[in-house]
Amino acid sequence: MTTPTTRGDHRPGRLHLNAFLMSSGHHEASWRLPESAPDATGHHIAHLQRLARIAEAGKLDSVFFADGPGLQGEVGRRPAGVLDPIVVLTALAVVTERIGLIATASTTYNAPYNLARRFASIDHVSAGRAGWNVVTTAGPDIARNFGLDDQPAHAVRYERAAEFLEVAYKLWDSWEDDAIVADKESGVWADAARIHHPEHAGTHFSVAGALNVPRSPQGRPLIVQAGSSQDGKDLAARYAEAVFTAHQTLGDAQEFYRDLKSRTLAAGRDPEHVRILPGIVPVIGATEAEAQARERELDELIQPEYARGHLARLLRVDPADLPLDRELPADLPSEDEIEGAKSRYTLIVRLARRERLTVRQLIGRLGGGRGHRTLAGTPEQIADALQEWYDDGAADGFNVMAPVLPSGLEQFIDHVLPILRDRGLFRSEYEGTTLREHYGLARPASRYATAPAATAGI
Amino acid sequence: MTTPTTRGDHRPGRLHLNAFLMSSGHHEASWRLPESAPDATGHHIAHLQRLARIAEAGKLDSVFFADGPGLQGEVGRRPAGVLDPIVVLTALAVVTERIGLIATASTTYNAPYNLARRFASIDHVSAGRAGWNVVTTAGPDIARNFGLDDQPAHAVRYERAAEFLEVAYKLWDSWEDDAIVADKESGVWADAARIHHPEHAGTHFSVAGALNVPRSPQGRPLIVQAGSSQDGKDLAARYAEAVFTAHQTLGDAQEFYRDLKSRTLAAGRDPEHVRILPGIVPVIGATEAEAQARERELDELIQPEYARGHLARLLRVDPADLPLDRELPADLPSEDEIEGAKSRYTLIVRLARRERLTVRQLIGRLGGGRGHRTLAGTPEQIADALQEWYDDGAADGFNVMAPVLPSGLEQFIDHVLPILRDRGLFRSEYEGTTLREHYGLARPASRYATAPAATAGI
Repeated sequence: MTTPTTRGDHRPGRLHLNAFLMSSGHHEASWRLPESAPDATGHHIAHLQRLARIAEAGKLDSVFFADGPGLQGEVGRRPAGVLDPIVVLTALAVVTERIGLIATASTTYNAPYNLARRFASIDHVSAGRAGWNVVTTAGPDIARNFGLDDQPAHAVRYERAAEFLEVAYKLWDSWEDDAIVADKESGVWADAARIHHPEHAGTHFSVAGALNVPRSPQGRPLIVQAGSSQDGKDLAARYAEAVFTAHQTLGDAQEFYRDLKSRTLAAGRDPEHVRILPGIVPVIGATEAEAQARERELDELIQPEYARGHLARLLRVDPADLPLDRELPADLPSEDEIEGAKSRYTLIVRLARRERLTVRQLIGRLGGGRGHRTLAGTPEQIADALQEWYDDGAADGFNVMAPVLPSGLEQFIDHVLPILRDRGLFRSEYEGTTLREHYGLARPASRYATAPAATAGI
Repeated sequence: MTTPTTRGDHRPGRLHLNAFLMSSGHHEASWRLPESAPDATGHHIAHLQRLARIAEAGKLDSVFFADGPGLQGEVGRRPAGVLDPIVVLTALAVVTERIGLIATASTTYNAPYNLARRFASIDHVSAGRAGWNVVTTAGPDIARNFGLDDQPAHAVRYERAAEFLEVAYKLWDSWEDDAIVADKESGVWADAARIHHPEHAGTHFSVAGALNVPRSPQGRPLIVQAGSSQDGKDLAARYAEAVFTAHQTLGDAQEFYRDLKSRTLAAGRDPEHVRILPGIVPVIGATEAEAQARERELDELIQPEYARGHLARLLRVDPADLPLDRELPADLPSEDEIEGAKSRYTLIVRLARRERLTVRQLIGRLGGGRGHRTLAGTPEQIADALQEWYDDGAADGFNVMAPVLPSGLEQFIDHVLPILRDRGLFRSEYEGTTLREHYGLARPASRYATAPAATAGI
């Protein structure tokens, strides 16, 4: 790893850290380790509650769950069942007090009224800690669970996502903060003039409203976005407050960072109001050799045939066209031809070409973090690598993807965080109580507010 | 009240009790009582968690929440905002251990894959305590939140509901109980041959599956139904395991009970496998006079103009056609012309005609329980009334709708339940751990089971 540059004066804040949680860990073979318990899956809530409490003890900004409403790919080679993310977030909200809670939900396979209501509800139950990772959900397998033969086209999905968000914003704003008066004497419980009916009529949606949930503590949940295609970046520039992204090199990450911040400015928003968090997979050892041994231990548990099938689906080729000990075929589709996970596709192809990896080597590189950057080293080396990206304008923080859970998250908190704290780069205690406060973002006023809105929730 | 008849030998079991929970209580003016706290609403989870704990301390079978995805009627005269019921159930599951948890969800405004997943998820989180009250959701106001100008016709909604349930059953069964093998050595996490793809293709839905949640502790949630129209009863006969219903007289309740049990038999199911629970609104006093005074106190807080508007919407007439001190107009629509809440409509019109009630009197009768039977009296009188309906073949138990919450539920548990227990009519301790066990119902096997299924959840 390179020596970090001096921290620039232009970045006075601290970095933001999200724990991306996933069953027994992000490494696809993590469940096969001796340490992994049978209940370290996405359908055992006690496991997920334990992980959230660990992240909260580390004072992380938030925890996050990916999601798609379907079983995808070959079933049976790694933990596959996952509870509904709204249920998961609620169960975590009840057993935690400060950490932010971010769930993924699809704008393609939900109705805006129902989903806006669910996130407002979680924001109430968690006292202002809800976040929504907005996805358009790629893949024909999932489309077939919802009466479609194939997914809607990429551009159509993103157009629908933007309108979905407009509708959701109107619904979240539909009760002014001070709509509830609860005057027993006069019998007026709410001021009907402060409950608004959006009457949205658009291309994809027609929604009367109002929402049947009063305005929530954060006004609306934190909006997160994780697609890095052109459409994805444009959606993020208009709406996102935090962005999860995947980059292998500092240069790629810096380019993405500059691009998204300038798109945000062009969309009429303050670039400081979107936090960019590249994913990292920390493989931590007391020595560099120990970390590398851990990485090897995990990679040797990968099942190459299974992983090759997964790679083939991602690249839209036949598994037989991917001999394990050769490089990727020359004639792969261009990103334009890919209808889902466009930017991930490009990242993987570029990684393989740049480093002239065989399919087997590529599978090893992807097994840990599916295209995210793996950092195998000592706590000091990992802290250096994070600081470098932070100082050099590639990140406002990181999406921490522990290869093994809970141990990888515990190691990160116990060994990497103290170094970041010593350098003044990460908080020692929560300063706010809401997810927006953790990310340094203001509570939005209702667009319908007829009088100065209260700053606290109702 | 009449003296109860001797308990019939043909009914060896105990009765089942569900606590129907609603903000500050079922009486529409309950929020105006001095005792009602400002946070006794449907959007403060601590209030709802407190109610569920009270019901669990009383060893009730279950708690239940009504729901509709919209703000209905005139807003502002009583607590109106309610958290998403899936969020509520999950938050209750985490702070309770034994009581069953039943939420209402619409087959008209949800996708089967998403909703089946949510209930399976709650069943996992609660270790087998989830129940789903299946509704088709009446009302044009709600339809307008989902891109429709008006609700689909009654018959179409029920046809869709039946197919929705068929799809949900297939999805809940899609993982066999023993599909997960978690063999680290061979790298096989699940036996793909025991995860089935329903590939449902029907009139309303096309759903490939499998579900992305392993089979849940109860196999599937308890199915509850609460519509008493002809279509509603037919749906209940085919699918319901518990039925909530509203009757004012013993004769009406007996007729409904016999009718539904015989329809269940005709649908090829054991009539014992559907539990019928009429709603009751207990207004409890140490003396009969004290109970009646409490009833008056509540009724005097009703706002007649607001209540008349609500009645007018229910009867599909103009409020101006309902002078407060006259009986209902003679020329009301027939039930056939009503596209939602058909049976409630008929119940209210029959009640008004039978007792020759003025609009003002009718409003008083409906203010407490919206058509459910109000029992105002001593604990002994209320226990007698419940026993009479139970002994005389009108009920397998009751849906307890406390007029004021939490006090009305606490009084019922502290004063009525001990009498029922002395008579051997209600449990003193939970005997099972799942909602199905509380209601005396077996865990269903997966339709796809290729080998004897395990009886315990995974």
